[in-house]
Amino acid sequence: MRKLRAALLGSTGAVGQRYLSMLANHPSIKLEVLMGSRSAGERYGESTRWLQGEPIPGEFSSRKIAPSRPESAKECDLVFSALPAEAAAEIEPEFAEAGFGVISESSAYRMNRDVPLIIPEVNADHLSLIGPQRKKRGWKGSLVTTPNCTATGLVIVMKPLLDGFGLRRAIVTSMQAVSGAGFPGVPSLLITENVIPYIKNEEEKVAAESRKILGSRHNGSIGESSMEVAISCNRVPVIDGHVETLYGEFPGPVTPREAIDSLRKFRGPPQRLRLPSAPEQPIIVRNEPDRPQPRLDRLAGSVPGMSVVVGRVRNGIGGNSVQLTLLSHNTIRGAAGTAILTAELMEKQGFLGR
Amino acid sequence: MRKLRAALLGSTGAVGQRYLSMLANHPSIKLEVLMGSRSAGERYGESTRWLQGEPIPGEFSSRKIAPSRPESAKECDLVFSALPAEAAAEIEPEFAEAGFGVISESSAYRMNRDVPLIIPEVNADHLSLIGPQRKKRGWKGSLVTTPNCTATGLVIVMKPLLDGFGLRRAIVTSMQAVSGAGFPGVPSLLITENVIPYIKNEEEKVAAESRKILGSRHNGSIGESSMEVAISCNRVPVIDGHVETLYGEFPGPVTPREAIDSLRKFRGPPQRLRLPSAPEQPIIVRNEPDRPQPRLDRLAGSVPGMSVVVGRVRNGIGGNSVQLTLLSHNTIRGAAGTAILTAELMEKQGFLGR
Amino acid sequence: MRKLRAALLGSTGAVGQRYLSMLANHPSIKLEVLMGSRSAGERYGESTRWLQGEPIPGEFSSRKIAPSRPESAKECDLVFSALPAEAAAEIEPEFAEAGFGVISESSAYRMNRDVPLIIPEVNADHLSLIGPQRKKRGWKGSLVTTPNCTATGLVIVMKPLLDGFGLRRAIVTSMQAVSGAGFPGVPSLLITENVIPYIKNEEEKVAAESRKILGSRHNGSIGESSMEVAISCNRVPVIDGHVETLYGEFPGPVTPREAIDSLRKFRGPPQRLRLPSAPEQPIIVRNEPDRPQPRLDRLAGSVPGMSVVVGRVRNGIGGNSVQLTLLSHNTIRGAAGTAILTAELMEKQGFLGR
Amino acid sequence: MRKLRAALLGSTGAVGQRYLSMLANHPSIKLEVLMGSRSAGERYGESTRWLQGEPIPGEFSSRKIAPSRPESAKECDLVFSALPAEAAAEIEPEFAEAGFGVISESSAYRMNRDVPLIIPEVNADHLSLIGPQRKKRGWKGSLVTTPNCTATGLVIVMKPLLDGFGLRRAIVTSMQAVSGAGFPGVPSLLITENVIPYIKNEEEKVAAESRKILGSRHNGSIGESSMEVAISCNRVPVIDGHVETLYGEFPGPVTPREAIDSLRKFRGPPQRLRLPSAPEQPIIVRNEPDRPQPRLDRLAGSVPGMSVVVGRVRNGIGGNSVQLTLLSHNTIRGAAGTAILTAELMEKQGFLGR
Repeated sequence: MRKLRAALLGSTGAVGQRYLSMLANHPSIKLEVLMGSRSAGERYGESTRWLQGEPIPGEFSSRKIAPSRPESAKECDLVFSALPAEAAAEIEPEFAEAGFGVISESSAYRMNRDVPLIIPEVNADHLSLIGPQRKKRGWKGSLVTTPNCTATGLVIVMKPLLDGFGLRRAIVTSMQAVSGAGFPGVPSLLITENVIPYIKNEEEKVAAESRKILGSRHNGSIGESSMEVAISCNRVPVIDGHVETLYGEFPGPVTPREAIDSLRKFRGPPQRLRLPSAPEQPIIVRNEPDRPQPRLDRLAGSVPGMSVVVGRVRNGIGGNSVQLTLLSHNTIRGAAGTAILTAELMEKQGFLGR
Repeated sequence: MRKLRAALLGSTGAVGQRYLSMLANHPSIKLEVLMGSRSAGERYGESTRWLQGEPIPGEFSSRKIAPSRPESAKECDLVFSALPAEAAAEIEPEFAEAGFGVISESSAYRMNRDVPLIIPEVNADHLSLIGPQRKKRGWKGSLVTTPNCTATGLVIVMKPLLDGFGLRRAIVTSMQAVSGAGFPGVPSLLITENVIPYIKNEEEKVAAESRKILGSRHNGSIGESSMEVAISCNRVPVIDGHVETLYGEFPGPVTPREAIDSLRKFRGPPQRLRLPSAPEQPIIVRNEPDRPQPRLDRLAGSVPGMSVVVGRVRNGIGGNSVQLTLLSHNTIRGAAGTAILTAELMEKQGFLGR
Repeated sequence: MRKLRAALLGSTGAVGQRYLSMLANHPSIKLEVLMGSRSAGERYGESTRWLQGEPIPGEFSSRKIAPSRPESAKECDLVFSALPAEAAAEIEPEFAEAGFGVISESSAYRMNRDVPLIIPEVNADHLSLIGPQRKKRGWKGSLVTTPNCTATGLVIVMKPLLDGFGLRRAIVTSMQAVSGAGFPGVPSLLITENVIPYIKNEEEKVAAESRKILGSRHNGSIGESSMEVAISCNRVPVIDGHVETLYGEFPGPVTPREAIDSLRKFRGPPQRLRLPSAPEQPIIVRNEPDRPQPRLDRLAGSVPGMSVVVGRVRNGIGGNSVQLTLLSHNTIRGAAGTAILTAELMEKQGFLGR
Repeated sequence: MRKLRAALLGSTGAVGQRYLSMLANHPSIKLEVLMGSRSAGERYGESTRWLQGEPIPGEFSSRKIAPSRPESAKECDLVFSALPAEAAAEIEPEFAEAGFGVISESSAYRMNRDVPLIIPEVNADHLSLIGPQRKKRGWKGSLVTTPNCTATGLVIVMKPLLDGFGLRRAIVTSMQAVSGAGFPGVPSLLITENVIPYIKNEEEKVAAESRKILGSRHNGSIGESSMEVAISCNRVPVIDGHVETLYGEFPGPVTPREAIDSLRKFRGPPQRLRLPSAPEQPIIVRNEPDRPQPRLDRLAGSVPGMSVVVGRVRNGIGGNSVQLTLLSHNTIRGAAGTAILTAELMEKQGFLGR
């Protein structure tokens, strides 16, 4: 089988690095072009402050970094973007206009009405926005986005609770890892032996993105879900893995048993299509009272880091609510992993390739 | 003025040590007797694994540890207990029977109907249970308890919200410091770079104790408050200071402005009586978006560690709810400090002295 | 090829758990019997507080734990021991007497003159003590030990420096991970945001064991090396990976270049015999100024966790000394990994099998 | 008594902030002018990212920040500088030329031959360089510097060992707190659960500065000490407090007992002159095997943070060496505290005042 050829915008940053690790041995995607701005022209291994525990995959270390321009990627079928929002706002449309399928983690265009905001297990059907998007913008390519890292794990858990029981309200508190802030990110002087009860713009993003992702298609556009979210975001001294407590309210009675069943049975198109980066179980529910924990569970599942781990499923106040704790790996499921899974899905559904 | 003479049960433990620091220069209480079980007969400085940043206050270092028996305290006016629950269950009644006013942090008797569970700013009037308690148990002394460390800060914040706006429901997530688990407590192998989403029995304690403390007196007994609490307790890698997010629901509209005003204005009997350990403001509300933080705010206020610090006061979903984040020092306000403040209050109100 | 059948003493402890992970897919050793004392009779997955990031390898989870007696292992060719010293002192000889080749990480018998203390790359020839050991003790089996976790990485680095340049003195400071203290080990209340400059008995062990391992055979016994070691051991808030600074003095001039060459070229019998757990390079030398780091380098090399990583090789005072920093994974290379490598070596050399 | 009026360069930075806390209630120095570059014209409390546990001392919060120019300080007697090296190189001479006594923590001029590098307990006599300095540079004022934070604690311990026993060589390993890197300083992503075995330029600074501070005056200039230092600097996840292991070699035998005695008896001019910031004991020696520890000991002594705490004093290899572990508070004794103590000394000795 011919592999998809991919280019990567923002390859030297903390988020970009994850793509190299995840695509180094990917069965159907070949990462051909590493792009960067300040480091264009240099060798990847020399100009990157590599932050991962495992070394730079051999093939990439001596690769020359290409400038962040469409010509750099001209042999490629798709472009991943790990750019920060400001750069993304400017650069991503240039690639989409030049005919590339762009899959972006950046927040720049997530909330635009004609831009799909995708979690492949949750709202694969939103990819149908691509047609109208091309028409409206006059693009040969397309722009698809993936959500904020805190929203991703949360919405995967919300989906079966919404479909099965009509989840109406979610009161959430997050305890987020420092890798979510990129590099250099959070100063150690601020977070060591501490909790910071605030992450700028994060709460607004999670609330708005959740409602968009869980919205339904009507005549070629996506309506927002009416489910309501209130979230308090906190930074804690953890490297990887966002923990969230979820207090969910329903229109009628739901037992913990029923909630657990629906979470465990949840599957989406990636599982049915057996996509390479799809974990067998999008949601793993643990029975032990003291799980999930970031250090023990963030790499759980058949594709490490791609499953959301849930525990402590129990009643809330009254019978119409359920409480639980969830964990998702913020730089895998919450970033590079969901983007790669989206690429795999788009290819299977014919949205990629020029 | 003659000082109150106090004895201390459980003096060598992590909680007991705080009493020595807080009572070393106390204007009206003199800590005369340090009791211990395994270490009875030894010098305090030699047999204690001292865990505080400041040294053992000079006067106590060479003090001989007395056995945990009423005779050890016979010159004293009151007895503080920092015993673990099991030992407390057995030993505390012996002291109350022998005529001592016992003030205990232990959970052993907190939920007994005839035992006051006191936060001096919140429910000083519950001390009136002492009369019926003495009658029922045939004690010359008395037993008064103080709440769980996570409940204490939370209930102080709930009180003005309940009195002012009829707080009906509280959905809470805690991020608790490791000192709350005592010594040796939480293994570093479990909590370093991690979150543990569970603390045994803690959630039940917080829910039950909140309702008792906020309950009203009726004919000499205390009825539970009907306010409902759902809490998810988490351990985080912080030394001192419990952070809690609170989502509060009210029967009608409450604005953040109104909530802040009522929190700032809140005062209780300790403030009116100018008790030595009473902070000028039981609740400090900060305006910065990223406060309170354990490392920066746990010692805030006029009596370090005795004020609860609140921040991020904002609307919840709809107009009938308010969200906020609070911080309280778990071994000062959440333990020794509230017990000492209770002693000061009891003395002023004539409940102590033999 | 028939696999070696192994039994494991102390299987439920923090150290024992590493064996399960490392032997789950081992090409030539099959872990057949898991032994334990308090948990004998129970299923492994139910009675073990599993502390690893990856789950219990499937085959072991429902395995019944056998009592710590020679009969439990009767179908086995060798016995690994991850027992604490006191239990080891009593139980290990019973197995050796019953005919088993026992390979132990415990400190109980390390310094006995007739017991080999082995790092396969360094002193494989010390296995020749087994003959005299059997004769002296009347054992059909044998007892072989592996060193303290802090000594292991250090001695691997010392070996080429001793052979190549006559290393005479080593002044060492360690910064050790909390996993080295087992479970529950170091309380978080003591080590969070702190350094503890002392580990009981550790400095004596490292000094004595280094000299034994680097000693030479003379007429069937092992003489101590005359190299001298002074070490200061510290505990730091790291999960896995011991860092050590080494200031080495030589009888004549040694350049950093020469030292690096000899470290990089170092190979031992495991490499020549291509043993399954032998890393291609026992010592990896990095050129970056700020390596090795525990979180980035502890799993470096072709067999994760089995290579010692060295960096910052530079001159000391005058020309006759070299300074460097080394890192070794304390529960892999410093514990289970070296024991398994020793088993592989012993089998190849005919010391195992009954 | 008239108080000395002081101005502060670099007042808003992490180091500058310490001065405000330490000078808020100082008996003989009044901090009159806070200077800053980017924030000049703004109120201190509004433009500073305050990083200390206690709040901004009230008097300073609304103080207007003055531009970093000599005119800003014209009513002042001395100028403290907490500027980074590059800014210091340019700005400090302007103030010295304008007639101010400048006391600087910056590294810019520390190694200039005519600039005293002072630890008041160690080399107060080096202040005599001020006369030649004025002459050579044509300054009405003067420039005095204080050492690198890692050198300060180390040299205080070296001084009695050099005077008493002729310390010849010091082999040192440091474990340094993150506050030593200023703000934002070390990213949490790099240091959480990790050790970084390198701090840029630090080892060179410590070696060179130690020899200068311990050097003797000859005919108006300072000769370097011949004592030799080799140091390995490491960053560890600690907020405040640098730990260092010291292996000291002497020309003849020294017992731990003798070393302890000389450390305990050590006093300098600040103690004899009873300067306000002088701790009673510059060096506190502890007997417990597991001290000093940053979290427990960094604020030890009669002036919190100004004493160096030593422990684990024991023999090295042979009889001519001693090992020990020392701790000093890097932003108090290692920065603001030593500069303030230097000001107190200079005033007493008539080097300040215009």
